[in-house]
Formats: sequence, structure tokens, C-alpha cells
Amino acid sequence: VKIKINRQALISKLNHVTKALPIKTTISILTGIKFVTTKTGISLTGSDSDITINTWIPLEIFTEKGKIPLIEIGETGGIVIPGKYFFEIIKKLEADVIEINTFDDTDILIRGDKGEYTLKGLPAEDYPQIELSNVLHQLTVPTAELKTIIAQTIFSVAVNESRPALTGVNFKYANNLLSCTATDSFRLSQRTIGLKNSDLSDFIITVPGRSLSELGKIIDITDPNTEIRITNNQVLFKNADISFQSRLLEGEYPDVATFIPTNFEIKVTVSYRELFNAVDRVSLMAREDRANVAKITVLPEENHMIMKSNSSEIGKIEEVVKIKEQTGSKLQVACSSLFLLDSLKATYNVDGDVTFGFNGDMKPFVVLDDLDDSNLQLIVPVRLED
Amino acid sequence: VKIKINRQALISKLNHVTKALPIKTTISILTGIKFVTTKTGISLTGSDSDITINTWIPLEIFTEKGKIPLIEIGETGGIVIPGKYFFEIIKKLEADVIEINTFDDTDILIRGDKGEYTLKGLPAEDYPQIELSNVLHQLTVPTAELKTIIAQTIFSVAVNESRPALTGVNFKYANNLLSCTATDSFRLSQRTIGLKNSDLSDFIITVPGRSLSELGKIIDITDPNTEIRITNNQVLFKNADISFQSRLLEGEYPDVATFIPTNFEIKVTVSYRELFNAVDRVSLMAREDRANVAKITVLPEENHMIMKSNSSEIGKIEEVVKIKEQTGSKLQVACSSLFLLDSLKATYNVDGDVTFGFNGDMKPFVVLDDLDDSNLQLIVPVRLED
Repeated sequence: VKIKINRQALISKLNHVTKALPIKTTISILTGIKFVTTKTGISLTGSDSDITINTWIPLEIFTEKGKIPLIEIGETGGIVIPGKYFFEIIKKLEADVIEINTFDDTDILIRGDKGEYTLKGLPAEDYPQIELSNVLHQLTVPTAELKTIIAQTIFSVAVNESRPALTGVNFKYANNLLSCTATDSFRLSQRTIGLKNSDLSDFIITVPGRSLSELGKIIDITDPNTEIRITNNQVLFKNADISFQSRLLEGEYPDVATFIPTNFEIKVTVSYRELFNAVDRVSLMAREDRANVAKITVLPEENHMIMKSNSSEIGKIEEVVKIKEQTGSKLQVACSSLFLLDSLKATYNVDGDVTFGFNGDMKPFVVLDDLDDSNLQLIVPVRLED
Repeated sequence: VKIKINRQALISKLNHVTKALPIKTTISILTGIKFVTTKTGISLTGSDSDITINTWIPLEIFTEKGKIPLIEIGETGGIVIPGKYFFEIIKKLEADVIEINTFDDTDILIRGDKGEYTLKGLPAEDYPQIELSNVLHQLTVPTAELKTIIAQTIFSVAVNESRPALTGVNFKYANNLLSCTATDSFRLSQRTIGLKNSDLSDFIITVPGRSLSELGKIIDITDPNTEIRITNNQVLFKNADISFQSRLLEGEYPDVATFIPTNFEIKVTVSYRELFNAVDRVSLMAREDRANVAKITVLPEENHMIMKSNSSEIGKIEEVVKIKEQTGSKLQVACSSLFLLDSLKATYNVDGDVTFGFNGDMKPFVVLDDLDDSNLQLIVPVRLED
């Protein structure tokens, strides 16, 4: 390898690739970034073996101001460079263009306007091959929609790993509908969207929550579409110059459709903002008492609902939320105030209304966004204490 | 207690007082804030028994727009309120003016525009009395100067508690000079300022580093002077509406004057900014290798100094810094690159020059700010490896 490269371009790409670097690993080559120079550009790869992120730097880009050269190739080749240090050095160098040369097989010399950095690398051939083979399904999803799917489900994945499949988000495609579901069995978040794709056959996969969380951070909204390729144990997201690959979770995902009520005895509509502020305060004591319970009392005759929480050590909170519309009778239900807060944070209709759907004090209830019926948030109540 | 109070005024004062609340404590009353209402205002006190912060909210303040009422007193009295929750609630309430009432002796009712909060308090009489008695010395220091003293010394206090006095900053007053010193015995930071105060007798005290670090955060520069009162085991800083009290450290502080060289065989002057950027990069590998050593080679004939650092696992870095002025011969010395970086961060002459004073490769060397001779930074070299 013998190149000169635009420092800012390299930083922005390293910013993505380093997200895949393992914090701890027993496979020492994975602490490095695979850096491959070809005649047409540079490919950067980082991986912790669960997640692999690859990105591409072209020789030049075209902007409003015309063509801007990014790379000057002297000698092509490949090397694995210590990831964290490479990134730190590139960020701190004072130079617009930096030189990267390899010598003695695996030593890397980095030069800015002043100072010289020598890093010890490893041969590119030793880097694990992580290529998709046997793609079973291939689809395209709007990038903005993919970001929303992640944001509206990911907080409900299970933290506990006793049922590994529940630590991921389940993507189920059938009848031209893509349903994306996360549940830790105490609550469930689901986003369902229509997908017209005549060639696509039905599939069910479960993507690790951590993978989606990283994907959500680096996905580039300026590329309107993201391509998804699925094999029997891997999924690849292609967006702009980024290829993001993740292993899939094994194990059967529960058939959640049977849990989700579609008819409700009691429906209560309230202002999103008023409810959010009330729940935000009711959950104040949650850090002290992890199972922080809010007791909700719906009082149709008084046209409001009361939310109460109390901690035996610290005190109690009582909030009143005005009811805008209601069908059904009065009701008392208790649930985790934090789950309720999470479900509201995943509702984007902040100037509008949300509707609760209840079926009695011990049946799961849902929070529905009045403007977006793709978004379903379900919470399992806890037993009322008195 | 029965009052109405301006919410923003209360928040800004709680912001200070809560800094003294203990993270963990066996004295449960110290998790609370002592809230005392008198006919002239409200006094708030927080303490972790090492540090006590008291602040005062007057009934009204005078601004350019005229008099603004802050408090309406219904009933005077005192109570201890759970600090963390009180602060959280006040921050999240939607109201310009909030009501705080006590009832049943120790219950506190807080009301905003909507919602009601009940917190369980404790009697004000049970709060520990933390008053200064027998003030031995009293002096006034410009607030900006006090902030600089803290910033230029605090990073050198010892982390290791085997010699407790070294975990603080030593303030020594003699011959109209106040010398403030911190050292962990591997480096030393000292700021010395003139103080004309005919009534003041000599003193030596050591203030815990943690206390000064908190003081630095809340001290209010808009009050030009800070009053300092010293007893045999406590110190009080009075600034604006804040009284900040700290215990003093016991144990003799070393007589550092004997360690600090005043003549140098070799003096080297370089640009601050050029040196800082070089040291910043040389210290890159410091996180991997805690004793990250930079080897400095002063080459008068070539008119530059070379700084090198290397890590057997990752690689090596070499930086060149131009010499602007030099007296004495060539020299090689090794030291912690992080200590060097800390000493430069405490030098404010960023557009000017700094001067190294050396006396051989194993003698402590100093970094001097060419514009401010109050600021002395000393570093003990480590043995050269080859």
C-alpha cells in the first residue's frame, strides 16, 4: 500500500467502520481495520464477528463545486491496521492530505504535515472472510422507514438472554406486509408496513438488537433506499457506501399475533403532550424502585384519568390527565411507568393524540398513535396492590 | 413551611446545593437538603459531611427591569427534603411558581400548575450543625484568581491515599505570598500570588482536592471577590450567595520549596501551540500503556527537539518541535507524556511560548509560562530505557 488520501474523507469513513470494532476480543486481528487499496478506491472493513461494517472510499467525488480528488494511489495492496490507534492518529494529525505507506510486509507508516507514526499491522489475508453466500431473500426498504422501525421497536427487546431470540427484533414478511416486533414478554413493540414486492417470498428472521442499534446510528438518510439481503444465518443492509452485515439469531420467535388484542372494551383518547409530561413525572421515582409502578384510574364521569405512583421511602406523586374521548366504563390498571414512558417516546405524533385500548385490569393494553396505525405499543399490566 | 417560590430561582440554587449531596452515605439525613424559611428568604443546605454548601434565596431581586419577587412566605419553618427527588421534581414541573407546604410535621406537599407531589421529609433539628467556630484567619482573594489556582494545581494531587495530605492542595501564606501547591511526588504544580493583607498572619492548610474541584464548578465569577475563613480543621469560601465549607486534611505537607529548582543548566523555549499539538499526539498510546513515556531529545545544533513514544504492541510516534531559543547543551530526558500534557493544559498562554528548564536527565524539570511566572509546573523524569 502506498497512497495519499484526503484526511476528512478518511475520518468520516473510519467513524462508521470503527463502530464494528469489538471492545474486547480474543481474536486479536479483529481489533484491526482491513484496509484494501485497489485501482478504483479503498475498502475499509471492521468486524466483531457478530457485526461487520464495510465502507468504500472512491478516488474522487463530484460536488456542486466540481470534481474533488480524494485518493492518489501509488501502490495497491491490503493490510490490517490497529483500528483504535489508526483512528485516533488520523483525527489528531494536522494535515489536509496524509500519506499511508506499508513496508517490511506489515509495518504501516503514516505521515501528516509533521510527525511520523509507525503502526504494526497484520497481513490482509489473515482477516476472516465474511462474505454472504446463498442469498435467499432480497428486498428494498425506504431508509427513513428502516430508521423508524428500529426506533419504535428496539427498546422492547429482552435484556435477559435466557431466550436468545427475544434479544432481537423479529422481521416477518407475509401477505405483502412486513411486521417488525420486539418483546421481552412484559411489553411488545411492533411496526407493520406494506411492502409491494412481487418477487419476494415470505420469510421470518430475527436480527440482534445490538446490531440494529449500531445500524440505526450509521445508516445514511441521504440514500433514500436500503437494500436488505438475507441468507440462512446472516443479513446484509446496503445503504450509500456502507455494507452492514449481522448474524441472525437462532431459535423460534413466539407467534405474537395471538397476544395482540384488536378489539377493546375501553378506549381512552388523551393529548400526547399532556400524557407524556404526566408519565415523565410519575416515573421520577423509577430509578430508586426498578419496578416503578404507575396506577392509572380512568374516570369517564369526571372526564379525566389519574396516574399515581408512590415509593414507601420517598413519597408519592399524583397527576391528572384530561380525557378527550372515551368509550366503555371506568377502569383501574397498574403498569411499569418506565414501559409507558418508552412507548410514548416511540410515538412521534407529539402534537396530536394517543389512544389507550384496554380489556380489563389484567389484560395487556395498547397505546396507539392516532396518526400512524403502523406503530403498536403493548404493555402487560401488573397486579394492583390495593 | 408554607411558601410560593419562583421555580427558576429555586432550580438555579438547587443546582449548587445538590453538588454537596453524598452519592452514598450511611447518615440518611444527608441525602436530604435542609430547607429553612425565614421572614427574609430561604436558606438551602446540602452536605456529605466533608463538604457543606449553603445558599440563600432572597424574597426579591433587583434587575434592570426592576424588582422581581421570588418568594411569598406563608409560614416560616424548617424541614429536610429528600434532595435528589426534590430537585428532579422541581426540574420537571410545568409552572412558573410552585407551592411548597409541609404538613403532619415531616410531609412535604409540592404543587405546580398540575399534579401533586408528596415527599417524606425529616425534622430540620435533626440535621447536623455545621457552623464554623474560632476563625483563625480571614482573607479575601479575587474570584478569578481562585479559579485559576484550582485549575492550575488540582490535577497534580495524589490519587493514592497512602499519604492523605498529598490528596489535597496546600495553601501556604508567608511574606505576603500565597503559594498553592499540589504534588503526587511524580510531578508538582504550584501557583504563587502576592497578597497584601497587613492583618493576616502566616498559615499553612491543605484543602481536599475533591472539595476544590466542586468549588471550582459552582464559584460565581460575577462576584469579584471570595472571602476565605479558616479554623483549625475547616475552611469556608464565601462567594455571592454561596457558602462553601470543607474539612481540612491533617498530616504534614512536605516542604516543597527544597525540591523546586530555580537555576537551570539548559533552557529551551518553544511555541506553546506547536508543543501542545506534538505532545497531544505523542500521548496517543497512553491509554494502552499507563506509564506512557515520551523521550525528549533536545538538539540545539539542529534547532529542534524530537519527541518519541512507542508501544511494543502497537507502533511508534515521532514528532519534531522547532526550538525558538536555547541556552545550554544537548540533552535527552524521558517523562510521562500525560503529565506533560496536563502541565500544558494548565498553561493559558496559548498564543505564546513556554520554556523548559532542565538540569540533566534525571533531575526534575519545569515548564514555565513565558507570560505568567505565577504558574510553575514540575515533572520528575523517568529513567531512559536505552
